[in-house]
Amino acid sequence: MDTDQVRGKWDATKGACPTRQVLGRFGDTWTMLVISTLEKNGELRSGQLKATIEGITQKMLTQTLRQLERDGVVRRTVVPTVPVTVSYTLTPLGLSLAAAVATMRTWAYDHMDEIAAAREEYDANS
Amino acid sequence: MDTDQVRGKWDATKGACPTRQVLGRFGDTWTMLVISTLEKNGELRSGQLKATIEGITQKMLTQTLRQLERDGVVRRTVVPTVPVTVSYTLTPLGLSLAAAVATMRTWAYDHMDEIAAAREEYDANS
Repeated sequence: MDTDQVRGKWDATKGACPTRQVLGRFGDTWTMLVISTLEKNGELRSGQLKATIEGITQKMLTQTLRQLERDGVVRRTVVPTVPVTVSYTLTPLGLSLAAAVATMRTWAYDHMDEIAAAREEYDANS
Repeated sequence: MDTDQVRGKWDATKGACPTRQVLGRFGDTWTMLVISTLEKNGELRSGQLKATIEGITQKMLTQTLRQLERDGVVRRTVVPTVPVTVSYTLTPLGLSLAAAVATMRTWAYDHMDEIAAAREEYDANS
């Protein structure tokens, strides 16, 4: 794997580097869950996303989808039915992000027991 | 790449799944930067981390390091010099996390220009 800490003009340790804000955006839990859910299902309406991602509020979902649309990661499609049908899907950029998000998710799944054990030991020694 | 949405007992779309909180923790910008910086440098003192990661406050750095230590991702070593020297390094668990974080970082570096262009287009049409 390419693990460059710095690449070309980008270095997230620098406060002014725009990749820092992007990292924070896409590392957000709700954002990762929206991306994962769209990756799994292909195309969903807002209500379907809300039903799948337990605990997400309408406000947070709307805000997350709007930011992802602005970033070019999610495409919003409006079908002129009555009432209109709005659906969301990942763009090619979004699909490439979904692969990176999957790496984080898979890591969490694979190591959750180890993390829980570390916490227990830390708390017992504190 | 293994992109299971659900693995065994883990499913981050469920509100009670502990992996959701873990995802949010490790997706945090400061956390990703601390992990990346330790991956690059091997072992650092708190002041060296603070000098490398522009804009991180002492409070946020201390809190991030303590959480990572509790999660078993970072090892804190105290050397009994006068005054004591405290240094931080990634554990084997932390090194495996650093690989996942690198995937996110690399994605951000590779696609920053594309994201910036998408934003410009979105804002022009709004």
